[in-house]
Amino acid sequence: MRLDEHFPFYRALTPAQQALLCDRLIEQTIPKGALMRSTDTDSAGLVLIDRGQLRALLYSAEGRETTLYRLFGGDLCLFCAPCLIDTIAFDVTLQAEKDTVCRRIPAAVCRTLMAQSAAVASQINALLGSRLTTVVQQIEQVMWRGMDARVAALLLQEAQIEGTRSLPITHEIIAHHLGSHREVVTRTLRALQADGLVELSRGRVTLRDVARLRELTQ
Amino acid sequence: MRLDEHFPFYRALTPAQQALLCDRLIEQTIPKGALMRSTDTDSAGLVLIDRGQLRALLYSAEGRETTLYRLFGGDLCLFCAPCLIDTIAFDVTLQAEKDTVCRRIPAAVCRTLMAQSAAVASQINALLGSRLTTVVQQIEQVMWRGMDARVAALLLQEAQIEGTRSLPITHEIIAHHLGSHREVVTRTLRALQADGLVELSRGRVTLRDVARLRELTQ
Repeated sequence: MRLDEHFPFYRALTPAQQALLCDRLIEQTIPKGALMRSTDTDSAGLVLIDRGQLRALLYSAEGRETTLYRLFGGDLCLFCAPCLIDTIAFDVTLQAEKDTVCRRIPAAVCRTLMAQSAAVASQINALLGSRLTTVVQQIEQVMWRGMDARVAALLLQEAQIEGTRSLPITHEIIAHHLGSHREVVTRTLRALQADGLVELSRGRVTLRDVARLRELTQ
Repeated sequence: MRLDEHFPFYRALTPAQQALLCDRLIEQTIPKGALMRSTDTDSAGLVLIDRGQLRALLYSAEGRETTLYRLFGGDLCLFCAPCLIDTIAFDVTLQAEKDTVCRRIPAAVCRTLMAQSAAVASQINALLGSRLTTVVQQIEQVMWRGMDARVAALLLQEAQIEGTRSLPITHEIIAHHLGSHREVVTRTLRALQADGLVELSRGRVTLRDVARLRELTQ
């Protein structure tokens, strides 16, 4: 792996900083289904996803969950952000949706580089800006959009990720992504099926009219 | 005003950077009620609120609004963040809730300092981390909490800001903060009044039982 291609700040580092990064870089594999909490300090750092897929989720006090954002190969992510940026004070859980391989700059190294290098700190600004944008868009979705629009948006995203319109996804998993109840999702999907937008079968949702699903999300 | 007290990175700047900051610092007054959109590039930069109060709000396509976060004297804020951090791509509006005085480091100067100084870039990391935390907490509120808990939290916040339990606030303004409808807020407030938690009169909400309002928010 070419570090300068994947960590955009790499070329701006001094030789000593580059050596520190290379020496301390950790390769990690995260099996599908594994959970990491942002309070687990031993998995903390700036993480480059080589390949795989993760979702960041919030849990409610009652155990409901909702997906905040997703990460794919090539993405950078601050794991355990609270121990890297003092002002970050929410507790997020990461779940591997597929077997994932990543390289991690441990938190202590990351802190050193952030303090020394404007390029590293600026890269992290870009990262935080991108997360902030995603999370604000989530608020807009939750506040202003109906459940039909949110289910349609999720199905279109899944179809894009998986490269197929026939999605092996349960109503419960959709509810977990959207922070909703399974019954609400089932009712919404049945209405979409009655309108000819999707077709439902056991453990599977097939997109029948992508154009109208897109319209719904706009 | 002592710049080193209010811009925590000031001491870490070189004399040339300090001179640039001082030369280009702009004092601005924003009258109560004034609106600034994050697309107005001529008010862009890193802004220190000297005194006053602003709220950052999102509008829906249908003209509904919701408060994302609030800013007070001493707070730092990235105005027009998209032109400072490329990855920020949401459109937020700032509204002065009180007459506000602030000092602004214009966007171009801010970009220069961010690129040169790890201290400035790290300060902006802290700022973005803090906003990200607030916005994630907002999602948790909207997704998991009932309207009674959200109204109670807003009333307690207002009482703290204003230093009084007798709040000159309309149901419509509460609805604007919470991204809800006035009718929903009125229904919620009447239920809180029936339970002895608040007292309603024309254009005013008085907090009668702060302890139980706090319980509601927990």
